[in-house]
Amino acid sequence: MNQQLTIGLIGFGVVGEGVYHVLQNTPSLGATIKKIAIRHPEKKRNAPSALFTTDLFEILNDEEINVVVELIDDAEIAFQIVQTALSTKKHVVSANKKMIALHLPELIELQRTNKVSFLYEAAVCGSIPIIRNLEEYFDNDLLNAISGIVNGSTNFILTKMDEQKLSFEEALKLAQEKGFAESNPALDVEGKDAVNKLCILLKHTFGINTLPYEILHKGITQITSNDANYATEKGYKIKLLANAIRISEDEVVSYVLPRFLKDDHPLARVHNEYNGVLLSSSLADEQFLYGKGAGRYPTSSAVLSDLSALRYGYAYEYKKSGTGKTYTLNTDFLLKVYVGFPEDEAVNLSDFETIHERYISNNEQYIIGTITLEKLIHATWTQSPDVSIIELNEETDLRKADFLYEEKIEQLEEALT
Amino acid sequence: MNQQLTIGLIGFGVVGEGVYHVLQNTPSLGATIKKIAIRHPEKKRNAPSALFTTDLFEILNDEEINVVVELIDDAEIAFQIVQTALSTKKHVVSANKKMIALHLPELIELQRTNKVSFLYEAAVCGSIPIIRNLEEYFDNDLLNAISGIVNGSTNFILTKMDEQKLSFEEALKLAQEKGFAESNPALDVEGKDAVNKLCILLKHTFGINTLPYEILHKGITQITSNDANYATEKGYKIKLLANAIRISEDEVVSYVLPRFLKDDHPLARVHNEYNGVLLSSSLADEQFLYGKGAGRYPTSSAVLSDLSALRYGYAYEYKKSGTGKTYTLNTDFLLKVYVGFPEDEAVNLSDFETIHERYISNNEQYIIGTITLEKLIHATWTQSPDVSIIELNEETDLRKADFLYEEKIEQLEEALT
Repeated sequence: MNQQLTIGLIGFGVVGEGVYHVLQNTPSLGATIKKIAIRHPEKKRNAPSALFTTDLFEILNDEEINVVVELIDDAEIAFQIVQTALSTKKHVVSANKKMIALHLPELIELQRTNKVSFLYEAAVCGSIPIIRNLEEYFDNDLLNAISGIVNGSTNFILTKMDEQKLSFEEALKLAQEKGFAESNPALDVEGKDAVNKLCILLKHTFGINTLPYEILHKGITQITSNDANYATEKGYKIKLLANAIRISEDEVVSYVLPRFLKDDHPLARVHNEYNGVLLSSSLADEQFLYGKGAGRYPTSSAVLSDLSALRYGYAYEYKKSGTGKTYTLNTDFLLKVYVGFPEDEAVNLSDFETIHERYISNNEQYIIGTITLEKLIHATWTQSPDVSIIELNEETDLRKADFLYEEKIEQLEEALT
Repeated sequence: MNQQLTIGLIGFGVVGEGVYHVLQNTPSLGATIKKIAIRHPEKKRNAPSALFTTDLFEILNDEEINVVVELIDDAEIAFQIVQTALSTKKHVVSANKKMIALHLPELIELQRTNKVSFLYEAAVCGSIPIIRNLEEYFDNDLLNAISGIVNGSTNFILTKMDEQKLSFEEALKLAQEKGFAESNPALDVEGKDAVNKLCILLKHTFGINTLPYEILHKGITQITSNDANYATEKGYKIKLLANAIRISEDEVVSYVLPRFLKDDHPLARVHNEYNGVLLSSSLADEQFLYGKGAGRYPTSSAVLSDLSALRYGYAYEYKKSGTGKTYTLNTDFLLKVYVGFPEDEAVNLSDFETIHERYISNNEQYIIGTITLEKLIHATWTQSPDVSIIELNEETDLRKADFLYEEKIEQLEEALT
């Protein structure tokens, strides 16, 4: 049961180096790193040089190595590595959300065929044990909704825009200086990182297989100081949320959008590089998890927990996929949104189901109305970099699913009388 | 691996009835209730009468029953039931925190000897999966602190005292009307329920065996409207917290006390019957979990998750007890406290290490000072029902343990250079 882990570490960046040093400091884990694969041998490394290799196959072909910890950026190379490792019956721990979002069904198949484990807690919300909790604890197919701040960089930027009244560009620069955003931050600020994570969450929450490009995802690049001022005036915080909400017995609505949140919403209080996830379950009702979503040691802690679980033969079981119950993604769902845009922008008003407010001034316009998710995905004006679309729903996402909670409780109460 | 569960349910109160009906509605779990033991056969029950028995041994002697779900109030009878069930190789799921706090080492021994599982997620913080996370996720002995609102009734009372400016007595009455407090609420409001839960958390966080009476625990009965006004004036919320903080390599400080918290503290925002737990880990830093701490369905959801885990042969491993590292409880630790008392009360000023503030008026007095935990436990004036002792430390508990975080990070950073 208590398996000895001999690790091949692939990638020695911020997290890779963190994992190396944490393992050095956690001898109780009984895990040793045998080899570390890197791409740039010329760089100075803070580990014995004998450990390093530029040849991936020194790890992949080494039969003594039973665990590959994959911590590189490139999703396609990572996929090849993980495929090979699983096929040669090595367990894999990865933090590569893009790779996982793009290839999850194949990877699950591979781990099953080869009877090995593929764990990736670090890929979603850094240190927050969300995957493990969805797998092991909230595993009775009673979940109704999940909403989360899943990207630390954008949350840091939004926090600074709010607290220090910085523009998006200034806040982004600050995030880069602090090491919370990549030099090429597009993945983060355009919502692509969030939608990758949402795809993984959809699998573990509802058993849904999907791909990132199939899901509406907006980032925060469109958010102007007008939008930020609107938020301040109304007492809102703007947060980028990844959502999946069960709207009927077999349909789920899912999207990544910025959202105005009142200060008493649990997610409104998740600041800076922190992440937070709000779950709604039929029985447990509201559950909230909060912790650091990025950074060397928080991410290392998730990798460490996966390694610790491997010692006991742990594997995800994807229980929600085996229930016989299948959910489809529905886009014919009304969202209440704030749409901000400059004077000369052609927002098509007829795309809205209803328009509640319209504001026009010399330098800004906004509309508050309801529109289907379908229209938000396909209308051309929604793609403009000058149009900001921010969800405006004062209820928590959970309350959208409340009818399910109420219904369930009612059924149960009825059964009781 | 996927074990069929045949359940004997003992107790059919609020939670027992909830579990029964939830299982009826969750056929996917493959768990059936064969028998339900009750004490009062004359009561009308919302389940087929053939299921009920008043003879416990119809369950304990039934070899087909492989799981006992124990949901009665009486801790000593519960202990006898659980002992017998484990000894006859039945798994046990229990929510009886008092019984567990008083008998944990014996019960662990019994489950090991008999190679069965004894699970009790519902005993601590209702629906929040805190035990499972401490066992399975935060299992690398890097935890530095845990602080939690672990009792829903007292938190409901404190919330109403704050929001509606009710007196303790009025708020208690409201809690009883809403079903959040027992008709005999002593266990809750005197902090006894909280300290029972703290004992269980100490085992799963630090591997410490202790007993409730060995740990300082105050409740909220002493809190007067003067104290509540002080909180409001200073912008604090009063919360009853159960704490365990690592203060050195081998020492932990632990106590249950009300505390003044600034509004930006995560635990200050846990209202009404909700519970919340804040963890500090060397690597992951701050982690926060929040959810309903009481009620029929939230508690049932925890029982359900334990049953679901049983199907896969899950058992707690008490990993923190097997590391070779042992912690002792230290009481020679300085706490900053507010002490409120009426004119004629003899608070011994010489028990304080330092006194920062002293306020005297016609109808109230208070002192703000530092005092050792040892003195708080043993001084006679601290036992008076007219003296309220409220911790006043503007930092989160985690920051007390921050030196450990900083130290760890420094060690790691040093290793990197």
